Amino acid sequence: MQKKAILQLLQDVQKGALTPQEGVVRLESLPFEDLGFARVDHHRTLRQGFPEVVFGLSKKPQHVAAIVRSLLPQRTNILITRCTQSTYAAVRRVTKKARYHEVAKAACVVQDDTIYGAGVIHVVCAGTTDIPVAEEAALTARIMGNEVETTYDAGVAGIHRLLSVRAALARARAVIVVAGMEGALPSVVGGMVSVPVIAVPTSIGYGSAFGGLTALLAMLNSCASNVTVVNIDNGFGAGFVASLINRKRP
Amino acid sequence: MQKKAILQLLQDVQKGALTPQEGVVRLESLPFEDLGFARVDHHRTLRQGFPEVVFGLSKKPQHVAAIVRSLLPQRTNILITRCTQSTYAAVRRVTKKARYHEVAKAACVVQDDTIYGAGVIHVVCAGTTDIPVAEEAALTARIMGNEVETTYDAGVAGIHRLLSVRAALARARAVIVVAGMEGALPSVVGGMVSVPVIAVPTSIGYGSAFGGLTALLAMLNSCASNVTVVNIDNGFGAGFVASLINRKRP
Amino acid sequence: MQKKAILQLLQDVQKGALTPQEGVVRLESLPFEDLGFARVDHHRTLRQGFPEVVFGLSKKPQHVAAIVRSLLPQRTNILITRCTQSTYAAVRRVTKKARYHEVAKAACVVQDDTIYGAGVIHVVCAGTTDIPVAEEAALTARIMGNEVETTYDAGVAGIHRLLSVRAALARARAVIVVAGMEGALPSVVGGMVSVPVIAVPTSIGYGSAFGGLTALLAMLNSCASNVTVVNIDNGFGAGFVASLINRKRP
Amino acid sequence: MQKKAILQLLQDVQKGALTPQEGVVRLESLPFEDLGFARVDHHRTLRQGFPEVVFGLSKKPQHVAAIVRSLLPQRTNILITRCTQSTYAAVRRVTKKARYHEVAKAACVVQDDTIYGAGVIHVVCAGTTDIPVAEEAALTARIMGNEVETTYDAGVAGIHRLLSVRAALARARAVIVVAGMEGALPSVVGGMVSVPVIAVPTSIGYGSAFGGLTALLAMLNSCASNVTVVNIDNGFGAGFVASLINRKRP
Amino acid sequence: MQKKAILQLLQDVQKGALTPQEGVVRLESLPFEDLGFARVDHHRTLRQGFPEVVFGLSKKPQHVAAIVRSLLPQRTNILITRCTQSTYAAVRRVTKKARYHEVAKAACVVQDDTIYGAGVIHVVCAGTTDIPVAEEAALTARIMGNEVETTYDAGVAGIHRLLSVRAALARARAVIVVAGMEGALPSVVGGMVSVPVIAVPTSIGYGSAFGGLTALLAMLNSCASNVTVVNIDNGFGAGFVASLINRKRP
Amino acid sequence: MQKKAILQLLQDVQKGALTPQEGVVRLESLPFEDLGFARVDHHRTLRQGFPEVVFGLSKKPQHVAAIVRSLLPQRTNILITRCTQSTYAAVRRVTKKARYHEVAKAACVVQDDTIYGAGVIHVVCAGTTDIPVAEEAALTARIMGNEVETTYDAGVAGIHRLLSVRAALARARAVIVVAGMEGALPSVVGGMVSVPVIAVPTSIGYGSAFGGLTALLAMLNSCASNVTVVNIDNGFGAGFVASLINRKRP
Amino acid sequence: MQKKAILQLLQDVQKGALTPQEGVVRLESLPFEDLGFARVDHHRTLRQGFPEVVFGLSKKPQHVAAIVRSLLPQRTNILITRCTQSTYAAVRRVTKKARYHEVAKAACVVQDDTIYGAGVIHVVCAGTTDIPVAEEAALTARIMGNEVETTYDAGVAGIHRLLSVRAALARARAVIVVAGMEGALPSVVGGMVSVPVIAVPTSIGYGSAFGGLTALLAMLNSCASNVTVVNIDNGFGAGFVASLINRKRP
Amino acid sequence: MQKKAILQLLQDVQKGALTPQEGVVRLESLPFEDLGFARVDHHRTLRQGFPEVVFGLSKKPQHVAAIVRSLLPQRTNILITRCTQSTYAAVRRVTKKARYHEVAKAACVVQDDTIYGAGVIHVVCAGTTDIPVAEEAALTARIMGNEVETTYDAGVAGIHRLLSVRAALARARAVIVVAGMEGALPSVVGGMVSVPVIAVPTSIGYGSAFGGLTALLAMLNSCASNVTVVNIDNGFGAGFVASLINRKRP
Repeated sequence: MQKKAILQLLQDVQKGALTPQEGVVRLESLPFEDLGFARVDHHRTLRQGFPEVVFGLSKKPQHVAAIVRSLLPQRTNILITRCTQSTYAAVRRVTKKARYHEVAKAACVVQDDTIYGAGVIHVVCAGTTDIPVAEEAALTARIMGNEVETTYDAGVAGIHRLLSVRAALARARAVIVVAGMEGALPSVVGGMVSVPVIAVPTSIGYGSAFGGLTALLAMLNSCASNVTVVNIDNGFGAGFVASLINRKRP
Repeated sequence: MQKKAILQLLQDVQKGALTPQEGVVRLESLPFEDLGFARVDHHRTLRQGFPEVVFGLSKKPQHVAAIVRSLLPQRTNILITRCTQSTYAAVRRVTKKARYHEVAKAACVVQDDTIYGAGVIHVVCAGTTDIPVAEEAALTARIMGNEVETTYDAGVAGIHRLLSVRAALARARAVIVVAGMEGALPSVVGGMVSVPVIAVPTSIGYGSAFGGLTALLAMLNSCASNVTVVNIDNGFGAGFVASLINRKRP
Repeated sequence: MQKKAILQLLQDVQKGALTPQEGVVRLESLPFEDLGFARVDHHRTLRQGFPEVVFGLSKKPQHVAAIVRSLLPQRTNILITRCTQSTYAAVRRVTKKARYHEVAKAACVVQDDTIYGAGVIHVVCAGTTDIPVAEEAALTARIMGNEVETTYDAGVAGIHRLLSVRAALARARAVIVVAGMEGALPSVVGGMVSVPVIAVPTSIGYGSAFGGLTALLAMLNSCASNVTVVNIDNGFGAGFVASLINRKRP
Repeated sequence: MQKKAILQLLQDVQKGALTPQEGVVRLESLPFEDLGFARVDHHRTLRQGFPEVVFGLSKKPQHVAAIVRSLLPQRTNILITRCTQSTYAAVRRVTKKARYHEVAKAACVVQDDTIYGAGVIHVVCAGTTDIPVAEEAALTARIMGNEVETTYDAGVAGIHRLLSVRAALARARAVIVVAGMEGALPSVVGGMVSVPVIAVPTSIGYGSAFGGLTALLAMLNSCASNVTVVNIDNGFGAGFVASLINRKRP
Repeated sequence: MQKKAILQLLQDVQKGALTPQEGVVRLESLPFEDLGFARVDHHRTLRQGFPEVVFGLSKKPQHVAAIVRSLLPQRTNILITRCTQSTYAAVRRVTKKARYHEVAKAACVVQDDTIYGAGVIHVVCAGTTDIPVAEEAALTARIMGNEVETTYDAGVAGIHRLLSVRAALARARAVIVVAGMEGALPSVVGGMVSVPVIAVPTSIGYGSAFGGLTALLAMLNSCASNVTVVNIDNGFGAGFVASLINRKRP
Repeated sequence: MQKKAILQLLQDVQKGALTPQEGVVRLESLPFEDLGFARVDHHRTLRQGFPEVVFGLSKKPQHVAAIVRSLLPQRTNILITRCTQSTYAAVRRVTKKARYHEVAKAACVVQDDTIYGAGVIHVVCAGTTDIPVAEEAALTARIMGNEVETTYDAGVAGIHRLLSVRAALARARAVIVVAGMEGALPSVVGGMVSVPVIAVPTSIGYGSAFGGLTALLAMLNSCASNVTVVNIDNGFGAGFVASLINRKRP
Repeated sequence: MQKKAILQLLQDVQKGALTPQEGVVRLESLPFEDLGFARVDHHRTLRQGFPEVVFGLSKKPQHVAAIVRSLLPQRTNILITRCTQSTYAAVRRVTKKARYHEVAKAACVVQDDTIYGAGVIHVVCAGTTDIPVAEEAALTARIMGNEVETTYDAGVAGIHRLLSVRAALARARAVIVVAGMEGALPSVVGGMVSVPVIAVPTSIGYGSAFGGLTALLAMLNSCASNVTVVNIDNGFGAGFVASLINRKRP
Repeated sequence: MQKKAILQLLQDVQKGALTPQEGVVRLESLPFEDLGFARVDHHRTLRQGFPEVVFGLSKKPQHVAAIVRSLLPQRTNILITRCTQSTYAAVRRVTKKARYHEVAKAACVVQDDTIYGAGVIHVVCAGTTDIPVAEEAALTARIMGNEVETTYDAGVAGIHRLLSVRAALARARAVIVVAGMEGALPSVVGGMVSVPVIAVPTSIGYGSAFGGLTALLAMLNSCASNVTVVNIDNGFGAGFVASLINRKRP
């Protein structure tokens, strides 16, 4: 669209309807964001398969519903994280394709079921209370077109559980590890695989768990070199980055 | 310069040496930073009177000297903060105009002594150990073309000292308040003037002063509404912002 | 009033009704705050155009209403920050001129619509959840007689949005930047303008956002020299200081 | 009572009813706390005029009421801090002498109105929201037999208010200073008096006030040498220590 | 001196050399600090027996010596805390009366050996490494004219040591308790006496002692109501306040 | 069971039904966790007398009930910590043997009343508000087959209370000390006994108690060498470790 | 090798030299780590191209040299991070292939120059003082067989610098962003690319930079979804993970 | 000795040399610590085998040597932790039996080689840099008469190393786990054994390791119920408590 505007301008110069000097002035007065070639997100086509994401926390149901309505025509998948039941109800009124994921506290609208991932993403979590965050990560990865495997309830104090899935872990292209309390799991998993491990601390625990800070710090100090970390409870971010890592290459 | 390039392009289109379609392609291929109208720092002329600043901390003397040498032709003032004696010596070999300010631990090269400030900037500090930071602020303001007044050693536990300079404070256009320990001074000064107060916490103190953190937090929670805060020991930043506030208006 | 009392005293001395020695004793016994010339806030006239501000948080509706009633005769504008609906209702019963600003959670009574500002104050914020704090800043600046422009939803991860308003930013006399999460926006904006930037961290975010502490620390460490910082969520303080900066000079 | 038991033992030895060897064994078998001379709180008589204090927070109404009932026969004053309306109601059913102090959120039973204090205790607070803590301090001091004066709403950003009560401050034997936010008030008051200043940080404020931590740290770093500090919101502790300082000497 | 100036002014009014109106103007123009009656530190006479204190940390020897020289004529005692050997040497050159206290790292010049204290101040410390801070407290109290007793090396893990001095503790008018590590000592001592306990945390310890922060926090949360706290390693402050408490009453 | 599978395999090799090479392949393909000899928790028999523990916090009643139902056949004791009344009700519907411990907020199902402990475990706590955590510790120790003694309300500011139970403390094989606020109690108790002291900080207190952090830090810095620490409010953990220490030796 | 041992065992069973029962016992007694099929790091072959890494900090030169000597025969590349000049000298005596990277403070021994990376890794850093960490990241990526591009000195306060390299950024398969102070750079870069961004906070800055903590927290709260974070100054970790992401797929 | 004094007193009463009343007075006047039956450390005999420990940090060599000389006659073992080479030299001049443990930075004098431990204490550590702390723990346990086994360099990212020593771990009566960085090791070990695990965080690491705080917090939040924690780098404390646990029972 914008290109057309510039083309028109140049054609006017060509035709003599505009002097070159006037052309320079006109070019300068174009709003920045309309200069197609100067757009930062010029690589839109690279973004094929990326979902639109709405961070639902502290947004009103009708507000989220309105956003979803405006996104529907893009035909991409839509993910609403931190989505309450009533927000889901409002979204559901906008589109019958909306689905609610109780455990992950997320809703999604699937409009594109292409597989964009090259291999499998594996999501591991430590305790049962970590599952909601793990599920948010898994859902994000699935909605971005990945095959996802999960191993839940594999705390480090029962190491045989982890060892029993070592084969599955070994074949993953990216591993997401979700843990609260002492946050030790990513280090152990990190030592078992040769691919990137994305660690997600959770706010699970009490006392000196400090709402996930302890797990976060532990993960940042992992002795396994293949571990990177995202914010506390940020299952979405972990699923997102794992999807980028696993993406089929052109 | 760049404008000329675009004008040339449009003239080529006008002359038929270039089709409009080719013109669009050529425009797109220009490196972003060379599109004059898209430059972020297009307001260079507004910057007249701004010094070049070199943050000397952990830079090697010869490195700083080289930077200074490259800046000299701009004819602006040059300020080197956190400047050691040996860095100064190296700079001095580059230009005889360099001067060292022992207390402020800063060097400067004055090439422009225009007054850019509309009024007076007043720098207050609490204890004698806060003076180096206060002097860095004062020097910065002076080198940016401001008249500066100072009141040092005016702690809040001796309030009459502050009261005795209330007239001088009242005529300032911006006040910089430097304090360590409990960082109470900006609140008291803030209540005495009607202009912006820039608070600078210092790393002075011991024990639970925590290297200036206590003073920083106190200042951020000032009950005086005209107080804003910069980083611990950041006399330069305070002097810089005070200078912006005090600048003559076009 | 007080001046009259002193004048009377001196006239009594003149008339012989009081010996000079008795006069000294009488002067000494006058309560401090009644010595007009010793008043700290002697520059009341400089304060013309300053609103009366009531910090509404944890004050009872009828208490706020009573304060407002007592302030009405001063004919200045009145601003009630952190004002609940029910507090507003109580204030509204005191004066029909009261207006409620839903988003800013503030009420105001406008009695003086003089323009005291010399130029424009620009308020930028990062995400939609930062808007309430940004609106508090904007409202404060407006009620202090300033022209205010706003750019909302301009996060640093979508830099083209910011670039598209660079012209508007460039003409502001003071810029307020409101951001939560990583608090990066003031640095980017700071690099785009030559005027003071007042950064307001917000308590937006989760996990290691620590209720705004992360944004606060980031802003204090800004690499842009023209940034100063106020307390978390302190939109009022930012609007107040920006107004002081922008004030017409005598 | 205990002395009698030991005397009896020694008399039995004297009479030959007990051999010295048996006496040693009997002495050893006496429970420690019954050895009158070994009691730590042997100075009970020094404690005359000390109230019994019940820390009401998270205790059930009937539990507090039972404690009060058991204390009544001692004829000392009884103070219940952090006392809810319903706890008060329960206490009131135990004794009609109970009185509730709404602002201080405390109840007391006065059974002894002797004046134990030698001079006046002065309680200063910064903002209106600090008053509950200040009142807890004042009430504690009063119930311990002191004359108490108060100056409320004397923030450091309006220093003339403080100056106007300097004479009252100067005659106090101990000063309690209650402040939230930046906690600067004790330093200013500390510089105005020559007696101990007990600083009480309050949890008033928001953002980086961190529930009183900022005020606490500021007070600990006071540049006034006569300031000591108690825990956040600990009005009781301040009133208690001020009473100890002010106590008439034997 | 100032009184004379005002008297002169009133006499001029009396004589007719000045009209009452002119008198008001003249009064207003007098610098604030010169209005004798408005001086905050008007209670100098109450300050009899107070030492002059120089905080030696990071001051240069010759600077401290110069201060001492200027203070000598006041005939008060002089205390230099955090005083190095070389600073002492410089002071010694100024006056032969200077004495160095190796353990307390302090120097003093005694010019007034009046006893200002009514009773005894007792200084307790936990471990041998806490002794320097305890000695600073004791020295401060002595130089302010107090009788001082000390009990060192009385850690809470050897409670019988403390119990053995309970009689001495019981007769003190103020107790200073110095402790690092877990900072438990003030609570135990606080339970043994009926007078104010001033707790001084020390920076002794390692790991999670955090340079005294742990001891500081523990002391602030003491379950003994008669405990107040000063900054980490602030022996001087504790000695100062204890002296104020113990001062003979007029 | 697994052993049988391997035996079968070897018998097949012996019989010639399987070649040695095929045997290797078959061994390799066995899932890790089914290789009896490779099981980490191979010492199950050592675990006799260990209860099954369900951490009830944020688990739904029916979920907990289901877990309990599945554990019943093991015939071990079952402990449900942080158990609400409604969770207990659900468990009670599963088994009539369930009992609720109001103060400890825990439920248990006793199916094994063997004494596994060699001596006595003593639980001490400081204030009445610490009792719930102390009771959780005591209950855990009892359900693991230990004789438990308790001393509650023995704060360090009333040291005679502690001294009066020194004999009981001296005969314990492990001591659990529960305290909030300044967390001083473990140091004092640690100095009175020659056995391990397990310190449990509680979240009791306000202001700078920081939800138990202060007590935690104090305990970690105990000057008594026999003190180790568990997480804030972790009465269960303390009871568990004390039981391990006290276990009868084979 | 181990397989052979098991084969031997089975052959013994087959031959009758061992009964099946004896075989089970023998299998059980084999040390765990020698059971080839149970090895965790069974995927050694997947590890081709991984360097051996020696963390040089606080290791003695001769110790590092000995490690390097033992690693040489593996024919992999060897990387020594945090390597002093004297450690390098010691390593150099072991092998002439050792090279020192002054800026990165790292040494390496290249024995394998295969390209294992599929695309380009781009390393961006904010200030000149961040370069050592950026170089550590770049060196790590290079030694793991990647093509690396770098953009240094691209702070967010000069956004045009970043924009000028947007094309280079857009073609990278992974981007490493190194920044100290406010740590804003990863968010801006994250918004410009569609691949994983690995953020490395540096300990650059002063005052409230808190040795990199501020930058770390800011990065964890990035509003760009493709950002993950490693520990402060952990250039190696970032280079390692970027290499894993960029690895050619089988 | 003391018993004799009391016996004498009672005999005097018996003989009539003392009236019972005089006896009471005499008893009261005895110093508390001399009342044998009231001594807290009455269980000296239980302490057989306990070493005398000197914490060497910041004590002068001759001071330590003097302490050692005074302890020699007790015939117990003597342990000097945090002992420098020069302190050792001074101790060595006092007794030829002194030995220095380079890695543990400790010296000891063995005068009693009785075995007091019932079983084996196992010390595990994560990285080579943790060895000094582990050795301090091991040395402490040995000097207290225990058999000690060690497994060093068993980080959680190489889990097979740990698994390979599971049999040795399983037979220990107490396990000490020393780890820095993320502090995950105690959780993994805790899950592998049924005895108490004493976790020692070390100050190893950089950036957000915060001098061991991260490891400390992680250990306090261990998901293994048998883990308790001591202060950062407190190898001595861990060895001490493990020895208490392992002590032969009477």
